[in-house]
Amino acid sequence: MEKLITQYRDMQRKLNAFQYAMYVIHWDSATEAPKGCFEERSKQIGVLSEEEYKLSTSKEYLEAVDQLFAGKDQLDPLLRHEIIQAKKRNDKITKIPMDEFVQFQMLMAKSQEIWAQAKIKKDFSLFAPTLKEIIIFLRKYVQYLQTEQLQGYDILLDEYEPGMGQKEYDQFFGLLKEKLVPFVRKVLQISNKKVYPFAKEIYPKEQQKQVCEYIQKVLAYDLNHGLMKESEHPFTSGYGTSDVRFTVHYLEDDFSAALFSAIHELGHATYEQQANPALNGTGCMGGASMAMHESQSRLYENVIGRSYAFWETHFPTLKEMFKEQMADTTLDDFYHWINEVKASYVRTEADELTYPIHIMLRYDIEKELINGTLSVEDLEQVWNSKFEEYFGIAVDSIDHGVLQDIHWAGGMVGYFPTYALGSALSSQIYYHMCQELPVDEILKEPTTAKINKWLQEKIHWYASSLYPKEIIKNAFNEEFNPQYYIDYLIEKYSKHYKIK
Amino acid sequence: MEKLITQYRDMQRKLNAFQYAMYVIHWDSATEAPKGCFEERSKQIGVLSEEEYKLSTSKEYLEAVDQLFAGKDQLDPLLRHEIIQAKKRNDKITKIPMDEFVQFQMLMAKSQEIWAQAKIKKDFSLFAPTLKEIIIFLRKYVQYLQTEQLQGYDILLDEYEPGMGQKEYDQFFGLLKEKLVPFVRKVLQISNKKVYPFAKEIYPKEQQKQVCEYIQKVLAYDLNHGLMKESEHPFTSGYGTSDVRFTVHYLEDDFSAALFSAIHELGHATYEQQANPALNGTGCMGGASMAMHESQSRLYENVIGRSYAFWETHFPTLKEMFKEQMADTTLDDFYHWINEVKASYVRTEADELTYPIHIMLRYDIEKELINGTLSVEDLEQVWNSKFEEYFGIAVDSIDHGVLQDIHWAGGMVGYFPTYALGSALSSQIYYHMCQELPVDEILKEPTTAKINKWLQEKIHWYASSLYPKEIIKNAFNEEFNPQYYIDYLIEKYSKHYKIK
Repeated sequence: MEKLITQYRDMQRKLNAFQYAMYVIHWDSATEAPKGCFEERSKQIGVLSEEEYKLSTSKEYLEAVDQLFAGKDQLDPLLRHEIIQAKKRNDKITKIPMDEFVQFQMLMAKSQEIWAQAKIKKDFSLFAPTLKEIIIFLRKYVQYLQTEQLQGYDILLDEYEPGMGQKEYDQFFGLLKEKLVPFVRKVLQISNKKVYPFAKEIYPKEQQKQVCEYIQKVLAYDLNHGLMKESEHPFTSGYGTSDVRFTVHYLEDDFSAALFSAIHELGHATYEQQANPALNGTGCMGGASMAMHESQSRLYENVIGRSYAFWETHFPTLKEMFKEQMADTTLDDFYHWINEVKASYVRTEADELTYPIHIMLRYDIEKELINGTLSVEDLEQVWNSKFEEYFGIAVDSIDHGVLQDIHWAGGMVGYFPTYALGSALSSQIYYHMCQELPVDEILKEPTTAKINKWLQEKIHWYASSLYPKEIIKNAFNEEFNPQYYIDYLIEKYSKHYKIK
Repeated sequence: MEKLITQYRDMQRKLNAFQYAMYVIHWDSATEAPKGCFEERSKQIGVLSEEEYKLSTSKEYLEAVDQLFAGKDQLDPLLRHEIIQAKKRNDKITKIPMDEFVQFQMLMAKSQEIWAQAKIKKDFSLFAPTLKEIIIFLRKYVQYLQTEQLQGYDILLDEYEPGMGQKEYDQFFGLLKEKLVPFVRKVLQISNKKVYPFAKEIYPKEQQKQVCEYIQKVLAYDLNHGLMKESEHPFTSGYGTSDVRFTVHYLEDDFSAALFSAIHELGHATYEQQANPALNGTGCMGGASMAMHESQSRLYENVIGRSYAFWETHFPTLKEMFKEQMADTTLDDFYHWINEVKASYVRTEADELTYPIHIMLRYDIEKELINGTLSVEDLEQVWNSKFEEYFGIAVDSIDHGVLQDIHWAGGMVGYFPTYALGSALSSQIYYHMCQELPVDEILKEPTTAKINKWLQEKIHWYASSLYPKEIIKNAFNEEFNPQYYIDYLIEKYSKHYKIK
């Protein structure tokens, strides 16, 4: 058994190194690589993926995992958890023909650049052939992987969030539709009235960058193990606890985009930085699941980052940094503005209350794209008509429409629903945080280090060494419960809009 | 034979992909990686190097190269040249024990960061243990590789410049000592008089960056296949023609450091960008040799970049960009200042005329370090006393002394002498350029694109598909001749300092 573990660890070390190389190359691609390098780069990524794929599907690797899986009761709990995941992955990966996998990786190496160009040029037809290739691959992918329990879109959903499928999401979104949508309608009828002069000002990129650097300090981000940069779409990526980076995207006519996406990404980054470093290099690095990851980013972005208590402490500094633009702005104005509810085009700029509706739209579309009832050719039209149906306004420009998100260009279908699930989870976590910590007092301090510490103890430390439901159960002695989300939203926005 | 070539190409493709990953990771390390990531990173680089090493020393690879080498007369000239190089490399690499090679790579992953910290803290003792490990490895390395023809330091010299050893460099530096040193002494006696008020001004980093961006355009650098960034020590790196990047380092109290290192690195980068793209992915990518590379950077930095004709065209723009600091500066003042000769501490900031003396100092020291007559413990003292002997002034601070260069921290011993050789070669190339092109007229144009084109035809296109001496011979129908260098320097500086 010892020898088998050593063999397995040795192969795992190589797989990690390939993934590490890929992480750094992708970071470079998204943040600064010159456009002319992508053709050559996609070849190099193709070779590296092929090597990784060959090793992870080699007889030696598969046998080592199979044998460790067979003897899993003798393994320590960490390695046991890792091997169970590896076995699950292997059962999947061996079913995809290697040439198709490599082809897809090579497509992925250029697809995000093609999408970015299409978005800049506001021309869906530039991206459609690429998206079509992606969807064709994913439809084949789910066929290769189907079992008696899981078929079609459910396979993709389960990959991003174990245990969640169309049945579960239909129920979850059903609950939101039943309890939240009528409330949102009420709110939308009374909002959209107030004018905020400071929101019409121009906020130079360099000033916004300084604000984001201030926010980094407030959220006690560890700059010894991370850095902030700029990219078309904000993201966090890294390796273990030693290197966790994030990006923002600055809009000079809307500083809140970069500000709140920085807070959001810092939630993700802090989650990974605060894991048990002993898990580095094992299969238990990184977040427990997509929704768990999103619960951390949403907790910071919305629950804390849009709270009155947080800005009572930090608004004076913000006002000082945006001195000219905010000369006449009060804390109350600012607070009301950052919590304004309205029907908006862009998901990443949507308010906390309407956000889940953006997700419902994508969920509906993904379901049909994968199950084959919607084709890429009809996608732009279907997006536009569904959007108008849900939000009561027509898409004004395709870069605010179907081309707004990077996810599908990155092959990520089934990911979006975890965002809504993560938001729901963040309310539940916040409820318990308030039971155990004097949150309002902590938010008066210069940094949120004490909140980070509590999150580390309850959630971050375990990384993906436990399932999300185990972490929740251990931390709060209860199951996931979306009622906290409904209660939180209705309480906050009833107060905000004086609805009884 | 066809099958053998396919097998070889397939393995070469993998080696390239490993090197590509390493290139991107090293770029990241030098420009932005957070300090806390290097311990983990060195492990990952260790694994990647080990995989590369295993493949390049595998029975399959060695046999394929051996067999292709045996049948080299049947190969097309390009592949033949590549196989001859590969055979030479293999004969070397197989002699180094793998564990020592991997250990060295892991050392390399952190040594540059340790050097950078020692330099910041001005404390040689922080770097000495690391440098000692490097020298111990290199002394073992030359023992593993020695042949009847080559021993000791000669092995390292030959790696950076094929055909050049202590005998050849002793002759080359001997010629410089005989003809140039007396001239330099004369110049040093009459210089160091004039005061330049603009040189005492502060030049904010952001302004300098804009100047470097202007210079990029003037030298017609292809931004579709490259980018400029900041690092502790300027360098150029890339892969093939598709992605060739460079860095600069800004000093606010001396803008000429970044300006001329940008011109220098642009010379390197343009060389690689302008190669025949058909050579990408083959063993014939990149420069023909270190000295050939340096001839391109020095040609731009000194011969063109410090010429009166160049600044006649671009000084008005420079003056406009440094409006406040240069309000009272004339073209003549600027020209005299950028060609001022003086005994200086830092090699990268040395003038064109005293530069080769900085190289002689390093050449003397490297020779002794590798041949074992000098120990790292005595290095700081020996550097300081030799420096005073050569330049007549004492080192004022260790970051201007033995800690100034990154090379030894990167394991690069034997590299420095190629700088002087490259300078000599640049004078020879420039002589022929002036025979064939109306250089002074071209320098009146907004960009030097026509010079780039000539360099591409004569030199760049061939990358490393020919030996340097073949390229020189084909282009100019003569051998390398250092007399052009002596003539160029004595003519330029006699005029400059009115020496008869």
